[in-house]
Amino acid sequence: MSRNQKMGKASMRPEQPVYILNSGSVVGTKEGQGPLGLLFDAVGEDDMFGCETWEEAESTIQKKAVNLALTKAGVKAEDISFVFAGDLLGQSIATSFGIASYQIPLLGVYGACSTCGESLTLGVMSIAGGFADRVVCATSSHYASAEKEFRFPLDYGNQRPLSATWTVTGSGAFVLGNEAAAKSGGTEENTGNTGGRTARARITGMTVGKIVDYGLKDSMNMGACMAPAAASTIEQHLNDFNSQPEDYDKIITGDLGKVGQRVLIDLLREKGIDISDRHIDCGIEIYDGDSQDTHAGGSGCGCSAVTLSAYILKQLEERNWKKVLFMPTGALLSKTSFNEGKSVPGIAHGLVIESV
Amino acid sequence: MSRNQKMGKASMRPEQPVYILNSGSVVGTKEGQGPLGLLFDAVGEDDMFGCETWEEAESTIQKKAVNLALTKAGVKAEDISFVFAGDLLGQSIATSFGIASYQIPLLGVYGACSTCGESLTLGVMSIAGGFADRVVCATSSHYASAEKEFRFPLDYGNQRPLSATWTVTGSGAFVLGNEAAAKSGGTEENTGNTGGRTARARITGMTVGKIVDYGLKDSMNMGACMAPAAASTIEQHLNDFNSQPEDYDKIITGDLGKVGQRVLIDLLREKGIDISDRHIDCGIEIYDGDSQDTHAGGSGCGCSAVTLSAYILKQLEERNWKKVLFMPTGALLSKTSFNEGKSVPGIAHGLVIESV
Repeated sequence: MSRNQKMGKASMRPEQPVYILNSGSVVGTKEGQGPLGLLFDAVGEDDMFGCETWEEAESTIQKKAVNLALTKAGVKAEDISFVFAGDLLGQSIATSFGIASYQIPLLGVYGACSTCGESLTLGVMSIAGGFADRVVCATSSHYASAEKEFRFPLDYGNQRPLSATWTVTGSGAFVLGNEAAAKSGGTEENTGNTGGRTARARITGMTVGKIVDYGLKDSMNMGACMAPAAASTIEQHLNDFNSQPEDYDKIITGDLGKVGQRVLIDLLREKGIDISDRHIDCGIEIYDGDSQDTHAGGSGCGCSAVTLSAYILKQLEERNWKKVLFMPTGALLSKTSFNEGKSVPGIAHGLVIESV
Repeated sequence: MSRNQKMGKASMRPEQPVYILNSGSVVGTKEGQGPLGLLFDAVGEDDMFGCETWEEAESTIQKKAVNLALTKAGVKAEDISFVFAGDLLGQSIATSFGIASYQIPLLGVYGACSTCGESLTLGVMSIAGGFADRVVCATSSHYASAEKEFRFPLDYGNQRPLSATWTVTGSGAFVLGNEAAAKSGGTEENTGNTGGRTARARITGMTVGKIVDYGLKDSMNMGACMAPAAASTIEQHLNDFNSQPEDYDKIITGDLGKVGQRVLIDLLREKGIDISDRHIDCGIEIYDGDSQDTHAGGSGCGCSAVTLSAYILKQLEERNWKKVLFMPTGALLSKTSFNEGKSVPGIAHGLVIESV
């Protein structure tokens, strides 16, 4: 029998860590101009990426991110057991048209902007469970396809309140495996910026979030809608692993932005948990809100995925941080649910990611 | 180490079977009047299920199906580790608003009408991998919410070609566990029609499909769009498990309908595989096409889910069949991809389900 464990009410610990062998990040122009710009593997010349539609552009960057991750890991597509992937668009079409050409068995996931966390969680489960040797976890978002999907045509030049976030144009992909160093395929030349074949980090625990709905209905303030879910999953995680905020160098949410960050810290303080000295948010890190006119910060599936790939894993590789709690956050709305006056429920999935 | 196995290129075999402890099926009026009508656990009086919108109606039946499955299994919601669930609507809102009240950690999945197969596959992985004791797998579709999401407003009275399928209004939910008989919670009174606490069936293998795209673009002929994916996964499955069609009493696709069935049988014949004497399709079984004006058959995530719950598991319980290959099929389109002139790629995920 496996010694993988269910921990507490909502968490899992693999018997052996599962490794992030390598990863790829592709972003649009605005992200390239932001504070993390130099760290991304690829920055588009424009946000169409040579395509006719925004949806095709998003498919293209997802495909490209997977290609980068495979190349940097020195792993061939045919050596991948499964892809766990999803995006924000209705019926996940960015994924369907982005991933198809790899001809890898696909398990589609949907967790809104928490999708990166969900896909990594399922990927770890499949490998630690003995069902796969290598998997790819991928997700994407695109500013223009998301605005069209959820809000107003860009041509309207609609005004955005300061609580609004800016959907990241970007895709992050991760190759997971059960050994710390990749073995097969590839050549030394295409190892990219990873400095060899050693895995970038290891995943040692996961906490799956439940839907948390405080009844907020403002799709222009998704940070506040998602913060209660992040607070719930952080509290659950600390309980399940019997750990403290101090056990992590950073606690990193996906796309709460500046408004959601304040709500999260306040909600956790009410429960006697103080993360204020170690909380960062991918949505706050990825843009310079003052000069880039992005208001509360970045959002979208791509936001946490590219920040993990380009920035967080780099900090872990350089051992500036040794152990982080990485928690992408999702707002479970659609234009239909919004137009029918429904609330915006949130969900957040957390992973413990450590230096190798 | 676990003795779960990856089999061949795309398949998995759990070391121990995972059991379908019980299940629930809720359908609309048309499905209640069909050939399987008397077998469903609950049939709505009308297709609004007491709600204000079709989307809320779909959420309601998903919630009800989960409740039925839990009650019949004699398991409480708090004893469920994770829910794997999804639906057809943009951003899976039927699931978000249907499942939230159970407060169980949620892993959202998207595989179009193959979602039932995908959720069961992931559920088996989580249990066989040692990460969960009990999980719920749920999915739903609704004729009216799907027509609104994918095609024309119902008020247009749009004509449907004979190759079109009719989206099933229904939800099926399954409680999976790692032992053949449920132990905790519930009382003998609420065992429903299962005749006690013995599991309904066991899952002994899974094959994950890849996206197959023959370039077809007709969203009114989804059977033909999905048949190549079903053919691909069936061929892969037989290869991976080194098995023959004769090893299964039935090979059961999700919602190919009458047109897709012919395409599937022809495609497999070209590869020297003959399933014609044992193939059935949930979409063909669920309606009487001649008298119910449903043309090629039923479709939607709910189609294979309610047919599995009400009909297929019953045949396995009564040992009319001992071993089936159950393969929900999905068409990966959205209204955006359709309007942008993209093809309708297909995907199909297969499970080996056997009598206890």
